[in-house]
Amino acid sequence: MGRITSRRRVVRTGPDGTQHVRVDTLAVEEPLEVRLGIEVLNVTMRTPGDDFDLVAGWLVSERLVRDTGDLLSASYCPGLDADGRQTYNVVEVRLRGDAATSRAARSTWTTSACGVCGASSLDAVKVSSPYDVSADTLEVDPSMLTSLPDRLRDAQSVFERTGGLHAAGLFDRAGTLLCAREDVGRHNAVDKVVGWALREGLLPLRGHVLQVSGRASFELVQKAVVAGIPMLSAVSAPSSLAAELAETRGLTLAGFVRGGSFNLYSRPERVRSPAGR
Amino acid sequence: MGRITSRRRVVRTGPDGTQHVRVDTLAVEEPLEVRLGIEVLNVTMRTPGDDFDLVAGWLVSERLVRDTGDLLSASYCPGLDADGRQTYNVVEVRLRGDAATSRAARSTWTTSACGVCGASSLDAVKVSSPYDVSADTLEVDPSMLTSLPDRLRDAQSVFERTGGLHAAGLFDRAGTLLCAREDVGRHNAVDKVVGWALREGLLPLRGHVLQVSGRASFELVQKAVVAGIPMLSAVSAPSSLAAELAETRGLTLAGFVRGGSFNLYSRPERVRSPAGR
Repeated sequence: MGRITSRRRVVRTGPDGTQHVRVDTLAVEEPLEVRLGIEVLNVTMRTPGDDFDLVAGWLVSERLVRDTGDLLSASYCPGLDADGRQTYNVVEVRLRGDAATSRAARSTWTTSACGVCGASSLDAVKVSSPYDVSADTLEVDPSMLTSLPDRLRDAQSVFERTGGLHAAGLFDRAGTLLCAREDVGRHNAVDKVVGWALREGLLPLRGHVLQVSGRASFELVQKAVVAGIPMLSAVSAPSSLAAELAETRGLTLAGFVRGGSFNLYSRPERVRSPAGR
Repeated sequence: MGRITSRRRVVRTGPDGTQHVRVDTLAVEEPLEVRLGIEVLNVTMRTPGDDFDLVAGWLVSERLVRDTGDLLSASYCPGLDADGRQTYNVVEVRLRGDAATSRAARSTWTTSACGVCGASSLDAVKVSSPYDVSADTLEVDPSMLTSLPDRLRDAQSVFERTGGLHAAGLFDRAGTLLCAREDVGRHNAVDKVVGWALREGLLPLRGHVLQVSGRASFELVQKAVVAGIPMLSAVSAPSSLAAELAETRGLTLAGFVRGGSFNLYSRPERVRSPAGR
């Protein structure tokens, strides 16, 4: 299987120009190709490990797969490097008939929506979701929310050594960590968590909170909504479109969750202290 | 023109659950669609501003454009939002004949390389560069390198307000900042800098240093090499593939450039104190 970290000689240089050689641990980044039959669906740069979770979550985000049964199989294709070793960098998937058909329909839609001058790209990138998170009855304590970054950090095995990985963690309403995943790409870390949930038969993830280690982009909000998650919490800042999409879809978006405080950008009523209920 | 920041009501929540409403500034994220004739080349999520630099730099990274003259024109397409306002989210480009032809050749190559089971995805994602940075004679002082993150930060106008933007800055060998750009996407910030250089007729960027505010991915090393830049300096960690590609192509890769120290992952001889020369 692919390696998650690799060791490399580096020249450490101090303020006075003194240099010494030491060995450092780096987060591994390698391409993963996803194939459906002879067709390449996607090539993404990712950190090896949990590859089938990554592929499953990506398929959910792209709405090619909705239920566990839609993904018939995922397996490594024989891909050899220059030394004849299996690279484990190509995954072939088989989808149930309906899923494959909806995929074809979606491709056509994307092409036609973008091909007409004047069509709104913004509308084209906003995907529909099979789930409505706006009605989710989730309510959490502020203290539970502020504890999530540390809980996620405790579960991160690689970051401590490389400083180079994003993390995503899925928590239940009591703050119990169900799944944590890491990757050089923040969207991949989220895909790995969602793919894990698909494979466990847990979608939609009603009443759950998704915690991420960095910023909250439009894409991450979208991935949460498509997985049925009603709350996304980020250690750093959200973008404008992340906040707008969260508002539109009824997802609670928390940002700057650090040092015991945080900002709520949408649907703040889901976070309140027991005394305030 | 597009806005770079937007203001939004947020609910600030303290450790004790006390909440108050305030107005926060967010980094804007919006889609940008790039068209060549009726064909959509790319849709990327980006922070509006310097859009023509972004498009030009992306075309360089994709090797669709090499010289200033390859990009005949770039202009906003009429794209209207629901209220009938111009969105400035669609850019149409015209390329010189050779550039358009090389593009078609490249598409074919990508498809065939990825479509054969067993072909190495890794080879497929590594692009060729028109420039050889390995022979670049750049040499810089350690103290110059350690000063770059602060110099870039000083030039960042938006980050201070939103905490939500990546930055990229192009410096000459004396440490003078030539161009700084910001974006919600780290690759976009680099594309904007490279695009600026293309439009100024400065490619290849021999003897220059590219400083980025975050981590160094494989993709950023590739973008530097394709623009002819011999040194990439990152505030945070590089990935394994970033270091490997830097080594292979002869680019000097510096990481964890903070607090007066840094690591050199490849070609360290380009960084040394005057006393050591």
